[in-house]
Amino acid sequence: MSVPSTQKQWVITSGDKGFDGLQSQEAEVPKLGDHDVLVKLHAASLNYRDLAIAKGIYPFPLDLPKVAASDGAGEVVDVGPRVTLFKKGDKVVTLFNQGHQYGELRPDTVGTALGGMLEGTLRPYGAFHETGLVKAPANLNHVEASTLSCAALTSWNALYGLKQLKPGEWVVVQGTGGVSLFALQFAKAAGAKVIATTSSAKKAETLKKLGADHVINYREDPNWGETARKLTANGAGADHIIEVGGEHTMSQSLKAVKFGGVITLIGFLGGAKPKDNILEALNNICTLRGIFVGSREQMEDMCRAIEANDIHPVVDEKVFPFEQAREAYEYMWAQKHFGKLCISIV
Amino acid sequence: MSVPSTQKQWVITSGDKGFDGLQSQEAEVPKLGDHDVLVKLHAASLNYRDLAIAKGIYPFPLDLPKVAASDGAGEVVDVGPRVTLFKKGDKVVTLFNQGHQYGELRPDTVGTALGGMLEGTLRPYGAFHETGLVKAPANLNHVEASTLSCAALTSWNALYGLKQLKPGEWVVVQGTGGVSLFALQFAKAAGAKVIATTSSAKKAETLKKLGADHVINYREDPNWGETARKLTANGAGADHIIEVGGEHTMSQSLKAVKFGGVITLIGFLGGAKPKDNILEALNNICTLRGIFVGSREQMEDMCRAIEANDIHPVVDEKVFPFEQAREAYEYMWAQKHFGKLCISIV
Amino acid sequence: MSVPSTQKQWVITSGDKGFDGLQSQEAEVPKLGDHDVLVKLHAASLNYRDLAIAKGIYPFPLDLPKVAASDGAGEVVDVGPRVTLFKKGDKVVTLFNQGHQYGELRPDTVGTALGGMLEGTLRPYGAFHETGLVKAPANLNHVEASTLSCAALTSWNALYGLKQLKPGEWVVVQGTGGVSLFALQFAKAAGAKVIATTSSAKKAETLKKLGADHVINYREDPNWGETARKLTANGAGADHIIEVGGEHTMSQSLKAVKFGGVITLIGFLGGAKPKDNILEALNNICTLRGIFVGSREQMEDMCRAIEANDIHPVVDEKVFPFEQAREAYEYMWAQKHFGKLCISIV
Amino acid sequence: MSVPSTQKQWVITSGDKGFDGLQSQEAEVPKLGDHDVLVKLHAASLNYRDLAIAKGIYPFPLDLPKVAASDGAGEVVDVGPRVTLFKKGDKVVTLFNQGHQYGELRPDTVGTALGGMLEGTLRPYGAFHETGLVKAPANLNHVEASTLSCAALTSWNALYGLKQLKPGEWVVVQGTGGVSLFALQFAKAAGAKVIATTSSAKKAETLKKLGADHVINYREDPNWGETARKLTANGAGADHIIEVGGEHTMSQSLKAVKFGGVITLIGFLGGAKPKDNILEALNNICTLRGIFVGSREQMEDMCRAIEANDIHPVVDEKVFPFEQAREAYEYMWAQKHFGKLCISIV
Repeated sequence: MSVPSTQKQWVITSGDKGFDGLQSQEAEVPKLGDHDVLVKLHAASLNYRDLAIAKGIYPFPLDLPKVAASDGAGEVVDVGPRVTLFKKGDKVVTLFNQGHQYGELRPDTVGTALGGMLEGTLRPYGAFHETGLVKAPANLNHVEASTLSCAALTSWNALYGLKQLKPGEWVVVQGTGGVSLFALQFAKAAGAKVIATTSSAKKAETLKKLGADHVINYREDPNWGETARKLTANGAGADHIIEVGGEHTMSQSLKAVKFGGVITLIGFLGGAKPKDNILEALNNICTLRGIFVGSREQMEDMCRAIEANDIHPVVDEKVFPFEQAREAYEYMWAQKHFGKLCISIV
Repeated sequence: MSVPSTQKQWVITSGDKGFDGLQSQEAEVPKLGDHDVLVKLHAASLNYRDLAIAKGIYPFPLDLPKVAASDGAGEVVDVGPRVTLFKKGDKVVTLFNQGHQYGELRPDTVGTALGGMLEGTLRPYGAFHETGLVKAPANLNHVEASTLSCAALTSWNALYGLKQLKPGEWVVVQGTGGVSLFALQFAKAAGAKVIATTSSAKKAETLKKLGADHVINYREDPNWGETARKLTANGAGADHIIEVGGEHTMSQSLKAVKFGGVITLIGFLGGAKPKDNILEALNNICTLRGIFVGSREQMEDMCRAIEANDIHPVVDEKVFPFEQAREAYEYMWAQKHFGKLCISIV
Repeated sequence: MSVPSTQKQWVITSGDKGFDGLQSQEAEVPKLGDHDVLVKLHAASLNYRDLAIAKGIYPFPLDLPKVAASDGAGEVVDVGPRVTLFKKGDKVVTLFNQGHQYGELRPDTVGTALGGMLEGTLRPYGAFHETGLVKAPANLNHVEASTLSCAALTSWNALYGLKQLKPGEWVVVQGTGGVSLFALQFAKAAGAKVIATTSSAKKAETLKKLGADHVINYREDPNWGETARKLTANGAGADHIIEVGGEHTMSQSLKAVKFGGVITLIGFLGGAKPKDNILEALNNICTLRGIFVGSREQMEDMCRAIEANDIHPVVDEKVFPFEQAREAYEYMWAQKHFGKLCISIV
Repeated sequence: MSVPSTQKQWVITSGDKGFDGLQSQEAEVPKLGDHDVLVKLHAASLNYRDLAIAKGIYPFPLDLPKVAASDGAGEVVDVGPRVTLFKKGDKVVTLFNQGHQYGELRPDTVGTALGGMLEGTLRPYGAFHETGLVKAPANLNHVEASTLSCAALTSWNALYGLKQLKPGEWVVVQGTGGVSLFALQFAKAAGAKVIATTSSAKKAETLKKLGADHVINYREDPNWGETARKLTANGAGADHIIEVGGEHTMSQSLKAVKFGGVITLIGFLGGAKPKDNILEALNNICTLRGIFVGSREQMEDMCRAIEANDIHPVVDEKVFPFEQAREAYEYMWAQKHFGKLCISIV
């Protein structure tokens, strides 16, 4: 396959025009530095962050214009002269924070996110430093693999980044967003018990098919936090709660959590501000943890686990073609999706 | 149910008469101290250690005579006046080292094993300090629960006591003894990959049914350690190896283990002495860990995981009646069993 | 020394009479159960919690009347017939939550605090279950040892209970309360760097003498959180912050903390409610942890560290005699103390 | 300062000529790739490994000829166009295994050691990938900093790589080699207790000055392992033992170690083979760990701790000039050194 010299790519030109700011532009296919890898991207997946960036409501620093999106998967088609980690033909997925190799983020690596600070994945060909990629799990196709960069790694970090999940522990996940569904799948693969919440009987069915041990309809049971706690072993509460930050969720999470349990605050998913005072963490003897995706080391561990357990990400049945990227943004903004929304790149 | 004042119990009278030293004796049913729990034992299970004690070949300190066996399960029928952890009707299982509550063993707790230093479980009624018992997983019957005290907890400690097993990691188990089968079941429940070894095609089938991803016949493939390593992700080797201490197993384990991987030495299972020099741990950049069962804290975690994942211990199809305890010892000594050998106590 | 049959003890009779509710009452010296230890208490120390209980403003469950105070140290003068952990003459200190042996608190152990749910330490003789005591560090006298039960163990749990402090890490402590001073001493003994805050030049001197690497006067520098961050290695922020919960401290702590750093919320020290929204933990990619003292396992580790490093708790120069317990409460309520306020019990 | 185009460098030409194989050769100063950093090396330090490579007795793979030595420190004088981690003027030290960034070594990173597989540090100018360097602690001069790459990082890995050292724990170090002295210094800075062994009264004095709490003369007390155990808290044994692999040391280490304690096997220091059987780890319920230096992540932590605690490596009073590198090898081979032997590079 010969690599073209130019390509069309989707660029977030600015954050004040809404999705109109997402523009298809002609650009050169990047040249490779010593340690760069050229990837033929076959798929990208969207996160709420991508929509927020386009809408101009993303609260963290940006350096626009940039090629959109952080999540991408494809095949290595060329490598720089000193690349050692990959070879042509390898199937790869992008690392969200390109500089976040291990341990915690640092002042010098926090600003290395694709699709906002660095050029993203909504383009046919991308060049990435070799340490900004991870081998895709062998059991996944490109569309599935493209969902791992942000949502999946966030879930993995929640469950393994501070207090490592153990078989027999209890996990609470909220709703059917990407992070929550990955957390459900990871937790079940790891032998944990999972309580999921939703407001839809139909989604409840899907959650059960994915392995949820209990599903609570939070509309019928607004005090679902206490219900969840009672379901856990000895009524002691959940070891891990994936808190997606809805308006009234935190107060319920605080009721559901175990002494010493961890409530992971998943960033900026809905924009809602919980009302709860920070002191509640004390009164409930629990831990609140804010995270921002995860490291390359964690992503390697995660991909190994996905492959070993043949986990397949939940992808919305509608996969948009590359030309309709803007329609994909609109579709997701209208919350018509279930699971991860993906774009196929030919 | 009224508790009798006396009972027949199986006592190891000395270690120099072989299984003839295992004697049925009439004794008083014990009185309860403030914190004691009276358990109607319904089942016991045997470990190689029990046979070795009877045969006089157990290399660690003993304080004979003592009621035999460390593993027992049953129902609480009475509690001392200050017991808070249990109540009548609770189903319980014994803790192997009664004093090992948390952390590592200590000089003052290493000598508190049932059936050797303290009175064991081969008796209809036993009194135990409340912290010497753990609630049995609700999904198990008494016979199944009786297998957890030694073999299961040893496996759990191997996988969770030092470097906690994560989904996607690789575990090697050797043969079809109790510890190995529990390790296989625990590892699969936790989303790990398992390579098992055996010399029998029939046992290989059973290992696969229990979830083993790969089974190697070590007779056909004496260099199985290298084979195992090649099967692991990227040929990097196994994260955990449960080394049961056969004569030639260690040298193969050292070939199969990953850099930084843990080979747990399971104590005194066959009496064989590996020939390998301690320096091999260095040359293979790995960790060798000797353990001696585990703590109450670990056993609580383990029981929660067993219940959450509905794990059922592999019990030999022949369960001996209480009167035939000596025949059970003979049967196990002849290696006729598969999985755990249990004794039913009426 | 013969043990009397009755004694005078200070009892919190109710929580609605202020310090008048602290009454000296004649009572029997307790009898020993099988596993009980009789301690001749030689000293007690007060915590803000004790004052709050007396004032009726303690927000957690109580079971009054009870002998006051949770912190006590003394000598073993008698042991129950089945005690194994202690013998006559041992010097001991009380465990705050008597049931908290290891791991996290649980629903059945959260209500076992001395001086509120169980009989406390303001009495000449107390009987405690053997697992409710820990051997005192050999380098401390009774008054010093009496300060360890609550404030010291809380600090230790903050620094070692979730993310274990390592040499070279940075710790921020606020003010000169007991918990903060212990955290300063523990962190320095462990090879960490410490930034302390205070509003008094004189106290700043003392903080430096105790080892603080930097002291910030928060009155002169209300934006001290940012100042603290700049002082840390590479300006990356503090690994651990001991947040004592003043009205404006949390917002500064959030500025001072590192990505992935831990802000431990020290409970109920001043009654002030931080205004900050729980979402801030996310925006600062940090962890907020509520704790409630610590376990026996942690206290053993702590006492070993205190002895190994010859750490001496900071005790206010005024030690009150037993008869003046109520004056001690008044003195502490007026905030006249520096470090731990102790009561000597003859 | 202008960089010359050629330089004299010390090359291990082969492993079968002894120290005559260490040759001074003229070579080009390397050109910089995108991510390379040019370092003006000001000092190197030697390890037993370097001598063994020259003597042809190093048991691990090599790719000769290569510039000798793994340990070097100096100043950045130029950076490749895409370097982000360093700038001109930064003081740096080399990472032993250039590819070992985080976690455990892997098949693809185990063969990236300087001075054996990759060009080493005995040259005035060296080019290293930016991730193959770490910022030197600000409190050290170049000679001191040059000692950190191998011996210091090995010690740090021993104490922090598996079971993190805590204040109050006990550490045993053997003799006065580089690794042992670093372990002593690190352990004392971390609030641990240290028992050191030596056969010389004079060295015992130095060990005490460096902070050793106890020094045992192993010639006068051949059963020093038992003596060491008795010195530890409650006679429970040492939490960490740095085993340098002398002929009779392991059997004593096994006597000194605590249940659950870690004996770290320090690689290939004396060539002696301990006689002890691998099964001893089981009988003593302890952990034996083989390590091979450490990762970049660990080295960053270590450098932070060295700077925070103003630790100065013990350097032999004789620092050899660059021209006398071969004499330095002879001096160290004759064991005339104390602490680290260094070479100054002008």
